Amino acid sequence: MNGNPLFSLLGRRLRLAVIGGGPGSFIGPMHRLAARLDDCYELVAGVLSSDPERAVARGREIGLPERRGYDSVVAMLEAEKNRPDGADVVAIMTPNDSHFSYAMAALDHGFHLICDKPMTNGVFEARKLHARVVETGRIFCLTHNYTGYPMARQARAMVAAGELGPIRLVQVEYVQGNRADGSRPDPLTGPRSWKNIPEKSGPSLVLGDIGSHAHNLLRFITGLEVVELCAERGAIVPGRRVDDFAGALLRLENGARGSFWVTQAAAGMGNGLQIRVSGTEGTIEWRQEMPQFLTFRHLLQTGMPMETRVANGPGTLPLAARSSRLVAGHPEGFPEGFANLYKDAAEAIAANIAGVEPDPLALHFPTSADGLAGALFIDAIIRSSDGGGWVTVSAP
Amino acid sequence: MNGNPLFSLLGRRLRLAVIGGGPGSFIGPMHRLAARLDDCYELVAGVLSSDPERAVARGREIGLPERRGYDSVVAMLEAEKNRPDGADVVAIMTPNDSHFSYAMAALDHGFHLICDKPMTNGVFEARKLHARVVETGRIFCLTHNYTGYPMARQARAMVAAGELGPIRLVQVEYVQGNRADGSRPDPLTGPRSWKNIPEKSGPSLVLGDIGSHAHNLLRFITGLEVVELCAERGAIVPGRRVDDFAGALLRLENGARGSFWVTQAAAGMGNGLQIRVSGTEGTIEWRQEMPQFLTFRHLLQTGMPMETRVANGPGTLPLAARSSRLVAGHPEGFPEGFANLYKDAAEAIAANIAGVEPDPLALHFPTSADGLAGALFIDAIIRSSDGGGWVTVSAP
Amino acid sequence: MNGNPLFSLLGRRLRLAVIGGGPGSFIGPMHRLAARLDDCYELVAGVLSSDPERAVARGREIGLPERRGYDSVVAMLEAEKNRPDGADVVAIMTPNDSHFSYAMAALDHGFHLICDKPMTNGVFEARKLHARVVETGRIFCLTHNYTGYPMARQARAMVAAGELGPIRLVQVEYVQGNRADGSRPDPLTGPRSWKNIPEKSGPSLVLGDIGSHAHNLLRFITGLEVVELCAERGAIVPGRRVDDFAGALLRLENGARGSFWVTQAAAGMGNGLQIRVSGTEGTIEWRQEMPQFLTFRHLLQTGMPMETRVANGPGTLPLAARSSRLVAGHPEGFPEGFANLYKDAAEAIAANIAGVEPDPLALHFPTSADGLAGALFIDAIIRSSDGGGWVTVSAP
Amino acid sequence: MNGNPLFSLLGRRLRLAVIGGGPGSFIGPMHRLAARLDDCYELVAGVLSSDPERAVARGREIGLPERRGYDSVVAMLEAEKNRPDGADVVAIMTPNDSHFSYAMAALDHGFHLICDKPMTNGVFEARKLHARVVETGRIFCLTHNYTGYPMARQARAMVAAGELGPIRLVQVEYVQGNRADGSRPDPLTGPRSWKNIPEKSGPSLVLGDIGSHAHNLLRFITGLEVVELCAERGAIVPGRRVDDFAGALLRLENGARGSFWVTQAAAGMGNGLQIRVSGTEGTIEWRQEMPQFLTFRHLLQTGMPMETRVANGPGTLPLAARSSRLVAGHPEGFPEGFANLYKDAAEAIAANIAGVEPDPLALHFPTSADGLAGALFIDAIIRSSDGGGWVTVSAP
Repeated sequence: MNGNPLFSLLGRRLRLAVIGGGPGSFIGPMHRLAARLDDCYELVAGVLSSDPERAVARGREIGLPERRGYDSVVAMLEAEKNRPDGADVVAIMTPNDSHFSYAMAALDHGFHLICDKPMTNGVFEARKLHARVVETGRIFCLTHNYTGYPMARQARAMVAAGELGPIRLVQVEYVQGNRADGSRPDPLTGPRSWKNIPEKSGPSLVLGDIGSHAHNLLRFITGLEVVELCAERGAIVPGRRVDDFAGALLRLENGARGSFWVTQAAAGMGNGLQIRVSGTEGTIEWRQEMPQFLTFRHLLQTGMPMETRVANGPGTLPLAARSSRLVAGHPEGFPEGFANLYKDAAEAIAANIAGVEPDPLALHFPTSADGLAGALFIDAIIRSSDGGGWVTVSAP
Repeated sequence: MNGNPLFSLLGRRLRLAVIGGGPGSFIGPMHRLAARLDDCYELVAGVLSSDPERAVARGREIGLPERRGYDSVVAMLEAEKNRPDGADVVAIMTPNDSHFSYAMAALDHGFHLICDKPMTNGVFEARKLHARVVETGRIFCLTHNYTGYPMARQARAMVAAGELGPIRLVQVEYVQGNRADGSRPDPLTGPRSWKNIPEKSGPSLVLGDIGSHAHNLLRFITGLEVVELCAERGAIVPGRRVDDFAGALLRLENGARGSFWVTQAAAGMGNGLQIRVSGTEGTIEWRQEMPQFLTFRHLLQTGMPMETRVANGPGTLPLAARSSRLVAGHPEGFPEGFANLYKDAAEAIAANIAGVEPDPLALHFPTSADGLAGALFIDAIIRSSDGGGWVTVSAP
Repeated sequence: MNGNPLFSLLGRRLRLAVIGGGPGSFIGPMHRLAARLDDCYELVAGVLSSDPERAVARGREIGLPERRGYDSVVAMLEAEKNRPDGADVVAIMTPNDSHFSYAMAALDHGFHLICDKPMTNGVFEARKLHARVVETGRIFCLTHNYTGYPMARQARAMVAAGELGPIRLVQVEYVQGNRADGSRPDPLTGPRSWKNIPEKSGPSLVLGDIGSHAHNLLRFITGLEVVELCAERGAIVPGRRVDDFAGALLRLENGARGSFWVTQAAAGMGNGLQIRVSGTEGTIEWRQEMPQFLTFRHLLQTGMPMETRVANGPGTLPLAARSSRLVAGHPEGFPEGFANLYKDAAEAIAANIAGVEPDPLALHFPTSADGLAGALFIDAIIRSSDGGGWVTVSAP
Repeated sequence: MNGNPLFSLLGRRLRLAVIGGGPGSFIGPMHRLAARLDDCYELVAGVLSSDPERAVARGREIGLPERRGYDSVVAMLEAEKNRPDGADVVAIMTPNDSHFSYAMAALDHGFHLICDKPMTNGVFEARKLHARVVETGRIFCLTHNYTGYPMARQARAMVAAGELGPIRLVQVEYVQGNRADGSRPDPLTGPRSWKNIPEKSGPSLVLGDIGSHAHNLLRFITGLEVVELCAERGAIVPGRRVDDFAGALLRLENGARGSFWVTQAAAGMGNGLQIRVSGTEGTIEWRQEMPQFLTFRHLLQTGMPMETRVANGPGTLPLAARSSRLVAGHPEGFPEGFANLYKDAAEAIAANIAGVEPDPLALHFPTSADGLAGALFIDAIIRSSDGGGWVTVSAP
């Protein structure tokens, strides 16, 4: 938690514009908090409503400068592009089906991007957006925020350092209970929510909502792609139009095998994302609901007892160390993990603006390439489930 | 932990004969300890070696009466059948491929049976043995011992009582690390072990060894059969002739969906059998390595916090209460769970001998019907894995 | 995580000036992060060094506006008092012995205050400062940050609501390992640290550092004062001049009994603050290292199982609900708990500026009255330890 | 779990006679189960009632041989002494006030002894009994059963091996809830129970019941004596005649400091015995309610992560290895820990009978010396509490 690198690089904070996520939403305040947490961003503009008066009022509620609460995305992109003190980066936190067009427009106007997941609702758009990101050279950060937790990053670093040996077996699951009761849905997930409209939420709600996170976490930690899978997805709650569970058997590019299970219909469960990764030398486990701990069980023949790692405790690798602001024993949570993506993206963007190379350790945030991988995975699950057997995940 | 019901019913303990499990094995001492624990059995005979001298010596080591350490199964069955104080029940704890013939022979001689799992190495023998059990009316207890844990039984009782509502989603896994290292196997699992000889250990080692337990536990708690599945099994450790992992997607008879994952090659893992069962009203979780606890998460809309249940603590149902010997806060372990099967079988056998009806609560131990279900499940996994798609589990 | 109440009340953020806590310290960045987290403050001024050039440089490092990185406290207080856009509130995060004079000076200049703990190094100063706070009517927030955790606040609210019945027994402990090794101290705690100089760190290092937190948490949750105690304190690491452990038996104002144990010399321990509070109806437990959970064990005769409460999960009371920004299952950590004090103080200060009554739920942050209670407690421990028996804690 | 050493040494099991603990008590069935578990004892005689008819009936209920269910202790001791196949060892599980006279009588008749704790109700009797044990050379095992848990023994062995370095700080607590409700006591602890009659249960119920266990566990693991203490004990539940809580600050013989806290009035708590021991090199923690785990936190400067040890897992020392019957991952519980005392005592008694030296690893069960230490500790707590300051624990 040292001095902010942006001040030395740019002499200022990055200027952030937001699309969506007004007061009352879950994810909007989270994005803005994440942007504030490490003091790398100044929130300067936003589109919080298509109604001009509401746009102004809600802009005031979240502390936007006067006249920079816009009533349309196009208006904001144009205006901010042309201000000398205009936004550097645009963050998108709207319903899934709009990510693509807003992101393309922002790229066309030259902005860097932070985008909520899933990147798009389909493979076609994902390919196109990813290509455009590559073409423009803009920074694109996809907020698969669970990869920002210090101990998820420690896991990735341990695998990359070979502490587990070659990976053999992976289990990832994401089990929630917020959609268990079809008859008494809560406001965030109720029938009027865009999430329950397949045209907006995409081809598989559970996969877009949480399956994409589970898949991304598996790739993030193992550094491996899923290449073949056999899956089933569907709605276990009677009468539901959108998917609420999906399971799959996985084959990874190095021959490792895996299990994937996600649902939002497991009554009473909270936000149960967890992963277990076994290599030839040991097994690590991490649970989002107790994110401060990472267990490492060594191959029995080594004679080493099970270890519990904590952020900035013994054995912390550099990627995890830079992702935690506190000394060991002081837990950080979901907001800090989310903020790590914003902080890393800020470093990458600042370096891009300054024309220097960023610290390679800053470049572990998910990008449009990860968004495309996620779309290809969801596509494969759907194909397998509809067809009833093993399928190959399409190449990017 | 009250007076032993056998003393009032029979005026004596049951007389037990064992086949296999000499000193030095893991499972033999466990069976004998389980038999002793509740004082329902007297160990009176055994076949511990085919060498006459060793049979006598090893019989002495485990405290067998003189001249009842036999050197062949046939000799023991004949002799014990003809003694006025001969064994009532025979317990089989030999390599898997011999269960069938010993069990059939014991039934033919009129003995009740306690048999280690898997019951047989294939469906054909399983059907035949089950039919013979039904025909003879003998008690047959299959030692799927994890169903003997008080909190596994509490889980079954809660589901049966409707506390979870109709079951929708099930995840069961059994993850061990004892076969993670192909190059440095431990003595129990080494190349000379019968377990590594497919002809002895059966068509799929991991499924016979632990998959059968996971499947049985799922059925025991949910009271539901798996009717369709899509699976993969194989050896993830290079050069291994026997399976060391298997995964499956499951469809249950009531339409519930499930996930199944078992392996013995997850480096560093201990004896990680765990299960999560979700119904419309909540989700329960149980882990063999912390067997004293059962968590119950209620459907969020009920407004009830997550509960942790313990044996003989609040909410204990009768099946769990009779399966725990101690007041709450005094943990019982693996031996007590194993012993619960022996105790229940003893009640059933004593009632059979006395010609009375046993307490229905005593009749929750696994039987030959469960052994057959296990064989059918393994058969389906193999067919699906070999064929690459969904298969129907054959009807018993 | 709704709109910021300050914008509607004041139309702006509060303006914050800091004394101490430059880059490289642990607590300075934490305070500033806490101030940013909920967007209630704008950091406008600071004294980060007594060297004029360093003061400017370090001000720039943390993003202070030009010319508001001062080189003395007096200079800052004077200048900020006289600016139309001057600071509203001063936050003090310097070594313990300077809290008193800086706080008195800031009050004399009319500022509201946020002050690190312990408030002062002795009772005399504590009484004087508290009296001055009362006299001036300024808001004074003492950063006993552990009381900001959602589940610590849930505990307080449950006790206040009578869910535990009258309190009978309390155990609080704070066990760290950062001072276990006298020969290899880490930089933060090394011999040159002000903490190891009794004149700066106060009459008992361990009590000022962490004992004051433990005592405050006990009072915060139970709502009860410690009135008598019997204690021992000292240095268990050979050759140490400052205390590294203290224990006490406690009698509370309502007759409840308690145990208190704090040390920084327990090798390997992290930041182990934990508390157990028993009333006639049940017992709650909370651990700082797993702050997302609060367990509630009901009196056995109620027949209710042990519950695990989480922030915004079932049973959350209003004080806890307003202290958590996320839906259940999304853990918050140390920074969010710290920030809750800043946020609540902001509401109180803004209401004071606006001349309105604040939301009573905002008024649960520790104040100078708590700082005085802490000083009196430390004084009593020292008297008891030196005298060897029970003493009465002096009245405020 | 190998062959029973008694069979090779004596060619038979030990013959056990019991005093007290009829069906329906908690502790009687536990003792008998512990005796059976490792097949070292044959239960041959008992005094289960002073009513001749009931003595016979209850003897039958627990499977005693005909005519060896006696109606008085004297009758049993006389008869068994004179039988060629008479008992070797007498186990006492009667109310506390009778332990002394029964134990003295049994010693006078030449029997070895297993005795429930506390050994006696006072120091005078404890000294006398201990002297008599020494004089007779009989084996005396005091069932402080928590010292039988594998991981408690692992803790002792780790301290003895120097893995923690010299001990500095100890915290032990035993927190139960079974006496929290004075108005609705459960049957085992009700007003008619002998436990609520001070003349029978001794000078301090909570100290005799559970404080003696906590103190013994501390001594067992650390190998150190408490030499000075400052304490309070009393009844927190209004109207109670017997103690239900006690706390103390401790000074150990090597200068280490400690905290001690025991109560049976913490509503909702189960059987919460736990201990934390810190040496210069690290800290271990063990909890009776999760007895399968022992955590070891290394001194931070070593750079080693926190470890979780399990029975027969990596790092298991010989004392723990011989105290566990199963491979790692198969939890043992309270009965197995209790049985470890019976098993070790059996080895010591058999060696005594055979006139050989026992395995030194068998000699870690509590003896009359520990019983005397316990009586001296309770005496010191009472003196300190009554006098209000530090006292010296009397030398044995």
